[in-house]
Amino acid sequence: MELLTINNVWMMVCTALVFFMHTGFAFLEIGLTRQKNTINILFKNIFIITIGLLLYYIVGFNLMYPGFAEDSAGIFDFAGFGIAPPENGMTPEYADGGYTWWTDFLFQGMFAATAATIVSGAVAERMKIGPFMIFTIIYVGLVYPIAGSWKWGGGFLDQMGFYDFAGSTLVHSVGGWAALVAVWLLGSRIGKFKNGKPQAIPGHSIPLATAGVLILWLGWFGFNGGSVLSADPELTSLTLVTTCLAAAAGGVVSALVSFFKYKNLDLTMFLNGILGGLVGITAGADVMTPESAIIIGAIAGALIVFAVSFVDAIKLDDPVGAIAVHLICGIWGTLAVGIFSTNPEHSFLVQLTGVACYAGFCLVTSFIIIFTLKKTLGIRVPEREELEGLDAHEHGMDAYPDFRLNEH
Amino acid sequence: MELLTINNVWMMVCTALVFFMHTGFAFLEIGLTRQKNTINILFKNIFIITIGLLLYYIVGFNLMYPGFAEDSAGIFDFAGFGIAPPENGMTPEYADGGYTWWTDFLFQGMFAATAATIVSGAVAERMKIGPFMIFTIIYVGLVYPIAGSWKWGGGFLDQMGFYDFAGSTLVHSVGGWAALVAVWLLGSRIGKFKNGKPQAIPGHSIPLATAGVLILWLGWFGFNGGSVLSADPELTSLTLVTTCLAAAAGGVVSALVSFFKYKNLDLTMFLNGILGGLVGITAGADVMTPESAIIIGAIAGALIVFAVSFVDAIKLDDPVGAIAVHLICGIWGTLAVGIFSTNPEHSFLVQLTGVACYAGFCLVTSFIIIFTLKKTLGIRVPEREELEGLDAHEHGMDAYPDFRLNEH
Amino acid sequence: MELLTINNVWMMVCTALVFFMHTGFAFLEIGLTRQKNTINILFKNIFIITIGLLLYYIVGFNLMYPGFAEDSAGIFDFAGFGIAPPENGMTPEYADGGYTWWTDFLFQGMFAATAATIVSGAVAERMKIGPFMIFTIIYVGLVYPIAGSWKWGGGFLDQMGFYDFAGSTLVHSVGGWAALVAVWLLGSRIGKFKNGKPQAIPGHSIPLATAGVLILWLGWFGFNGGSVLSADPELTSLTLVTTCLAAAAGGVVSALVSFFKYKNLDLTMFLNGILGGLVGITAGADVMTPESAIIIGAIAGALIVFAVSFVDAIKLDDPVGAIAVHLICGIWGTLAVGIFSTNPEHSFLVQLTGVACYAGFCLVTSFIIIFTLKKTLGIRVPEREELEGLDAHEHGMDAYPDFRLNEH
Repeated sequence: MELLTINNVWMMVCTALVFFMHTGFAFLEIGLTRQKNTINILFKNIFIITIGLLLYYIVGFNLMYPGFAEDSAGIFDFAGFGIAPPENGMTPEYADGGYTWWTDFLFQGMFAATAATIVSGAVAERMKIGPFMIFTIIYVGLVYPIAGSWKWGGGFLDQMGFYDFAGSTLVHSVGGWAALVAVWLLGSRIGKFKNGKPQAIPGHSIPLATAGVLILWLGWFGFNGGSVLSADPELTSLTLVTTCLAAAAGGVVSALVSFFKYKNLDLTMFLNGILGGLVGITAGADVMTPESAIIIGAIAGALIVFAVSFVDAIKLDDPVGAIAVHLICGIWGTLAVGIFSTNPEHSFLVQLTGVACYAGFCLVTSFIIIFTLKKTLGIRVPEREELEGLDAHEHGMDAYPDFRLNEH
Repeated sequence: MELLTINNVWMMVCTALVFFMHTGFAFLEIGLTRQKNTINILFKNIFIITIGLLLYYIVGFNLMYPGFAEDSAGIFDFAGFGIAPPENGMTPEYADGGYTWWTDFLFQGMFAATAATIVSGAVAERMKIGPFMIFTIIYVGLVYPIAGSWKWGGGFLDQMGFYDFAGSTLVHSVGGWAALVAVWLLGSRIGKFKNGKPQAIPGHSIPLATAGVLILWLGWFGFNGGSVLSADPELTSLTLVTTCLAAAAGGVVSALVSFFKYKNLDLTMFLNGILGGLVGITAGADVMTPESAIIIGAIAGALIVFAVSFVDAIKLDDPVGAIAVHLICGIWGTLAVGIFSTNPEHSFLVQLTGVACYAGFCLVTSFIIIFTLKKTLGIRVPEREELEGLDAHEHGMDAYPDFRLNEH
Repeated sequence: MELLTINNVWMMVCTALVFFMHTGFAFLEIGLTRQKNTINILFKNIFIITIGLLLYYIVGFNLMYPGFAEDSAGIFDFAGFGIAPPENGMTPEYADGGYTWWTDFLFQGMFAATAATIVSGAVAERMKIGPFMIFTIIYVGLVYPIAGSWKWGGGFLDQMGFYDFAGSTLVHSVGGWAALVAVWLLGSRIGKFKNGKPQAIPGHSIPLATAGVLILWLGWFGFNGGSVLSADPELTSLTLVTTCLAAAAGGVVSALVSFFKYKNLDLTMFLNGILGGLVGITAGADVMTPESAIIIGAIAGALIVFAVSFVDAIKLDDPVGAIAVHLICGIWGTLAVGIFSTNPEHSFLVQLTGVACYAGFCLVTSFIIIFTLKKTLGIRVPEREELEGLDAHEHGMDAYPDFRLNEH
């Protein structure tokens, strides 16, 4: 009972930290975009976390952890609506004494909303809010938990030996693939490409963006540290060390590469490098040496710089770098488990298979959802609304009414 | 000893989270008001938390937990100045091993300042700072702990079976009643009502207001989670689940009701709905099923929309919605215990009695304090100061000297 | 094993809180300076935390905790590159079961970067970023850990009975001495002194500065609470109580003294008073009664007001008050242990000796580093860059591109 109590305390702390990540995402996304769309982004973020929790209560948790039967294919199952606890849900027998049923639900519920948040940043400044809310409900309510069940719910990828400790793929790539599809179907913001050349559209508050990244890093203590699913002293503390070292290496390498490439001390690249390092280490934070963590983070940091300019080059407009950070580094981190893991059972090929399965499922489902929305409700705001800002048109509010602002 | 150590760790984490709520309150209050009064509000918030802790050290703790004698009426007692620990204050014998004496003091001390903070938001932009500081000292130093002793200190309401888990009434309504009295005695801001019709006075930073609500929600993990007074795995984790679900339901319902009422996706109503849900669940977070928590939160969310427009209709000017959030939802949450509690001993009538006792005591004491201040020092700043902002007049500082600002 | 698990959970929570302090420092430093240098300050802060962790991994940890041999003079030793754990690093035998080797590294690593951050604030708005980065690498990578080894690594000051619980001297003064040297070698900002009289250069965002202080206070729960190096219920909770009471007393006294001196309710002085109280209690937070903590904080708060005007009077330009807060109150706190400690073995003379040793070492090393940089690369940005802001020149970015700004 004492061990359950300790474990549960740690898991509740981690739950709180993952919840706090939504503040980080909100700050990052508004900081890197223009002030005229601030309320819209905040509204989406608040919507995602509230509706996400309610959906996870109604269907998500039981879709993600359906308790697949012995002979199940491990692709889809559903344990019923609501979250009635099993008989042993509050005893040390449940989940090896790692936490209670309630903590299990809440910790996983905090993760659930993250996938849609990643998309929110990528489609910022031009997507209609109604269709985005519908997308969120379907993606967070159905796609994310079903995809999650394949590994964390004990489904076919889990049985195959696929490893994704805290969600480089299950959370970040799942969001990243949808971001890719959404950005492609949505088109770029007015003014992003002139004569085929990408134009910088600077974010309106770099202090908030920076605070966002620091809060996300803090939240990652819970995101990865809690994914140990107990307070095991060695594993949790190793996880925090690898997480922080990968973040640091990602940031420093990203800043260096960007300095040599662009002769500029670019703060936003530094920040994205930190996030890239964090996403990269997430798939294997508990099975890495500190040395491997630094290498994984460093490669993620370098990847970020090239991925951001590649996304520009193929004429996709991703205002916050979500594709580079969450998709590219999510894939890298998942594959890195197959290269660096201290567990000899982890295999590069299986990791690649996992990545491919999620790619297929997420690309198809997000395409169906967003394409359908595009052909029915429409997903893009009118040109005038985009130019004047979504805040005034969709919400009738200004984010900063006391400040004099530049039009652009 | 191990169990004490675990419990104490949890309680210290919760203490830190409740402390962090003061950052949330500060962000929320300045975000929803005009930039010209920002320094004033921040000064008040910083004053409240510092003087609040010192007063709780000097008299508050021993007024709130006086150890009523057997034959006491349970209305008032005082265990002496300072916080000398009892002999067993650091052993598992103290407080059933839930925490040490020092943690007990600090956790409760963090709560104490909150009541005045609620008032701070309601009187923003027009109250003189000197009288507000005097009010704070009396209300936090004497009124709050005496009122608290009736239930949490084992006083007459506790003996009567009144239940208020984490303070829907003891904290939020106690602040809310004083906010009501203060707003009434103070009058509305210049320009709030034109020809009897309420005018919107938009807050100057919606990002800070949003961050404030997210930080408050985070802090509520400690506010409610710590009110279990131990790390009991089932109770703490249930409490976090009910707290988060009520917040989510409050926000979503508030946004929906406000959308149907005003045809607008109103972010501040969404935010106030979340706070309403949190305040509503606070009285019974440990004795609710997740289903009941969602219902309580949803009703709180709906109440918020109507309460905000009712406060407007009766010509009270509450810039941050403190009366709707803390008073109305505080009352609702306390009564909801009598309806939804899983503990059959909880009774609607007793809950109503408790609400009435606090209403009477807080209305009378806050009226006496604020009315006396009004008739002696005066509580309202001169018209010119109100128009030009309290920052320039009371503090000689600007919150944003590098930014060009609109006058209004 | 259970006790190790509990202790380790507490230490990981504290590690996360200390990490969060870097957000607090970033907010405080940009809030108290002009918007045109915001990106530069944030870049430095992000650089410090990332490179600081990597350096602490490469050399710092093993310089600071080299395991001095029996017959060593206890001044310098090095246990080798990297952080290979000892055999018992994850068992209750390591560090009396207070935490694992990994947690040990990470908690101490979070401290390491703080010393340079203190300097960052003091040199803001005029120091070239390249030389600052070089200074950071040497000071965080070598000076801080060697200095730290003298006490926390079991070196000669530890053997002499010097006491510095959480770093009034080892962290804050070590940063403060370098800040003093840097500010002196760098000269004051253009416009800071007119006809020999100090001019106020108001900070551009008081809300961020205020949030920074509240976040730092929150972080101090981990900074001091974690310095117990276990979750011992009595010591950790006493530490949090003394920490918070000293902060509160520091703030209130600072505001009062400044009110009587300047007839003004000065929010930044209030904030610096809180920080002064926190720095002051840090050396002895676990060996003080609550009463002593209040006295130490109160004296620190008074000291701040006089120190800030003294720094002005001797024509040093310290934009964020780092010398007053971290150096003066760091010294005060260390000496206060010799006066107020409940441990009779603590001696004023030994404390004074410790202060003197750190003064000598830090003054000499930081002078050598910064003077060499001044004579080689130069440390001061050109006049035009200083006037137009470091953001545009060193980073090619604006912090707030959507806002209309005042030139100054």
